[in-house]
Amino acid sequence: MLKTADHLYLQVADNIEQLIEKDVLKIGEKLPSVRNLSKQQGISLSTAFQAYYHLESKGLIESRPKSGYYIRFNSRRMPDIPTSCDPVKKATDVTVHEMVDAVFQHMANDDVMKFSVATPPPSLLPAAKMAKAVVQAMRELQDYGIGYEQLQGNVRLRRQLALQSLNWGGAYTENDVITTNGCVDALTLCLTATTQPGDTIAIESPSYYGATLLAEGLGLKVLEIPTHPITGVDLEYLDKAIPRHKIKACLFVPNFNNPIGCCMPDKNKRELVRMVEKYDIALIEDDIYGDLYFGKQRPATCKTFDKKGNVLYCSSVSKSVAPGFRVGWTIPGKYKDKVLQMKRHHAIACPTITHASVAYFLETGRYENHLRNLRKILHTQFLRYSQAIMEYFPESTKIARPQGGCVLWIELDPHINTYELFQQALKHKISFVPGRVFSLRDRYSNCLRISFSVPWSKQVEDSLKLLGKLIRKMQ
Amino acid sequence: MLKTADHLYLQVADNIEQLIEKDVLKIGEKLPSVRNLSKQQGISLSTAFQAYYHLESKGLIESRPKSGYYIRFNSRRMPDIPTSCDPVKKATDVTVHEMVDAVFQHMANDDVMKFSVATPPPSLLPAAKMAKAVVQAMRELQDYGIGYEQLQGNVRLRRQLALQSLNWGGAYTENDVITTNGCVDALTLCLTATTQPGDTIAIESPSYYGATLLAEGLGLKVLEIPTHPITGVDLEYLDKAIPRHKIKACLFVPNFNNPIGCCMPDKNKRELVRMVEKYDIALIEDDIYGDLYFGKQRPATCKTFDKKGNVLYCSSVSKSVAPGFRVGWTIPGKYKDKVLQMKRHHAIACPTITHASVAYFLETGRYENHLRNLRKILHTQFLRYSQAIMEYFPESTKIARPQGGCVLWIELDPHINTYELFQQALKHKISFVPGRVFSLRDRYSNCLRISFSVPWSKQVEDSLKLLGKLIRKMQ
Repeated sequence: MLKTADHLYLQVADNIEQLIEKDVLKIGEKLPSVRNLSKQQGISLSTAFQAYYHLESKGLIESRPKSGYYIRFNSRRMPDIPTSCDPVKKATDVTVHEMVDAVFQHMANDDVMKFSVATPPPSLLPAAKMAKAVVQAMRELQDYGIGYEQLQGNVRLRRQLALQSLNWGGAYTENDVITTNGCVDALTLCLTATTQPGDTIAIESPSYYGATLLAEGLGLKVLEIPTHPITGVDLEYLDKAIPRHKIKACLFVPNFNNPIGCCMPDKNKRELVRMVEKYDIALIEDDIYGDLYFGKQRPATCKTFDKKGNVLYCSSVSKSVAPGFRVGWTIPGKYKDKVLQMKRHHAIACPTITHASVAYFLETGRYENHLRNLRKILHTQFLRYSQAIMEYFPESTKIARPQGGCVLWIELDPHINTYELFQQALKHKISFVPGRVFSLRDRYSNCLRISFSVPWSKQVEDSLKLLGKLIRKMQ
Repeated sequence: MLKTADHLYLQVADNIEQLIEKDVLKIGEKLPSVRNLSKQQGISLSTAFQAYYHLESKGLIESRPKSGYYIRFNSRRMPDIPTSCDPVKKATDVTVHEMVDAVFQHMANDDVMKFSVATPPPSLLPAAKMAKAVVQAMRELQDYGIGYEQLQGNVRLRRQLALQSLNWGGAYTENDVITTNGCVDALTLCLTATTQPGDTIAIESPSYYGATLLAEGLGLKVLEIPTHPITGVDLEYLDKAIPRHKIKACLFVPNFNNPIGCCMPDKNKRELVRMVEKYDIALIEDDIYGDLYFGKQRPATCKTFDKKGNVLYCSSVSKSVAPGFRVGWTIPGKYKDKVLQMKRHHAIACPTITHASVAYFLETGRYENHLRNLRKILHTQFLRYSQAIMEYFPESTKIARPQGGCVLWIELDPHINTYELFQQALKHKISFVPGRVFSLRDRYSNCLRISFSVPWSKQVEDSLKLLGKLIRKMQ
């Protein structure tokens, strides 16, 4: 009974949300009273209340005292989206390494408002449940878990991770999975397993600086592929680039790409997989944000369409369970033996206790429930942050439309240097990531990435307001 | 009082051990009765008993029923030591990778007698104390430790590790230390921080296959430097090789090198450091076995003599506390910023809970006590294993004289292929590491590495006996 009721208010709220999106209900317009809504829809008063409360928590409607509910926000009426690959080129004396250092040297400082961290804070994660799982792990593991685990990883963890693949249309077993020290470690192993130093790999543009710098550090050449802010990598361009540049592997984030947040349509994913099969090259798929979708359904992955084993799927629990546990994994397809070899050289084994703990947490079956809440919170925060940025940043500001994840990509006027803005903001104890670091070329210096993972508060709003002021001063 | 008594029996035992070593007391000779020893030395009967018991546990003397104690073993009368770099070349169809795979695919099989594992088993490690430390970590860490720790690593752990450096004449602070996911991770970060793919590095010969394959996987060329079984790397050879081969970094294990077990004399360490300073190249020093010395004193490290920051010291707690925790560290000297950058790309952070736990264990001050016991056990096992190998292997067998650590390097007749021997042994559920994998050239195919970390037992003795039989059959 509770389930049906639960379902009912969401259904009503979703219908209203769609009317807002389609601009049938316009900003400022009054909604029916709770009593009328209840009559119209044939639902109880409390269900009607719940529906409005849900929409209000998302920032879509607001209640005005003694007057009722009004439309407050329409995400489709947001400003323009950023241009995909029309980069502004500008000379700069600061290297990407130095910028990344500058951004992350304030990580340990609790005074700073960290719009720079693309990871949900511990307050949104199941800390107490994980602590319980750690205690269980020590109780159940031989010698309290001080010994090595097997090379491929904890078998109970691998089984749980294989089961997770059902959510995106995979049907893998524990034999297909290799655990790693977080997702970057999975990327390292997959890159070293599929390339030689001197080889060229393809990445999105803009793309996560961590992966790019990692690849460059491994002696790989990196080719940036134009990327559309809604549909992702330009496949036509890629099809020509692969033979021309002798590309050996693609390293893409098809779901909720960091920083743009776009989600490649299934059609494109299928086409991309056929393409890497045609050239017989590797596709390293970073799906770390895949579970954090805002829509109704978990998006598919490229691995979903992988028949020949060319896709090396990579992910971790860092964005949804416990970043400090450093638990990641890969399903490396036909490169499995090579990846295992790389794991032996780079890691020997993963930490026994933390990996077993994640297995035990997943076995409780509480992950789905936790994810449902986390997704709702992140979606709501996305709407709140976007609204504030629309309100406080200059009108010419362009904002991406992430369909999941926890970051917002923002494009400012061409002449604004966001690294200078970052230095200004830091004086006011606000940090974000300047756009320049998301490319190895001299691009995106007028862009910035803002994470919306810090829970919404007056302080968050004030910080965004202040950031808007600083931008206006630079115009 | 107890301390003095404790000291007294060891003093008496040590004196007798020295007489055995100097061949004053010869194998088969009868020792004074306990009563006479007590009178001669002016010690209590119980102290005299303890001294003999200690020597017996080390396998140096034996008691014969109703007769008394007799000299059983003299480590100086062991067979010849293996030749340093007089490698036997032999064509082989199996790659080093395949051999390593073959050796380690039986890791999870409890039936196999694993002379292949160069790590003390959990039974010799402080498992319960570590479990306590994990519980303390969860209690004291914010949000039970599910969040990221800072990039450089847990500050309490770094402080403890810096204090450890006092044992080998270092005087470092927490600011000098960077924590890593075990020692191989430290080696990876140091290699990527000091070299570019295509560069050449120098290593010992024979040397640990893990490090060599790792370096090769990172696109580095590897030059093997002749290594003496007692004094380590041939410095004269190295001095010529560095400019000739444009060597960018040396990756050496100066203390209890794996697999030879040699310990470079201080004079050579100092000379090696001056050499890398002269050419201004990096010396990556793997000191993972440094605490497991058999002698009276912790050996110095190359880092001890490092004035200009050219030495990147690397170690871990995997050989002495908890291999499954994957806690390692580096003191990278002048390369610190670069190593931190590499850590950001490769790891983001280390696992919060396990790293904090090791800090808390070290803070209890019980590490020294634990190490004292572990060293005694390993030294005793070394003597037991050597004795059995002398007894059961053919007379032409050459055995290394490790001065610490937990592996024995053994050289058989030139025509014996130890990979074939390995395959034979595996049928009898015995594993070891064939010598061939300790070089990237075609060397050491008549050598093998036997770890003496499995506690001595009838089963161990029987396995060594069987191994001896298999070798005789191949002669």
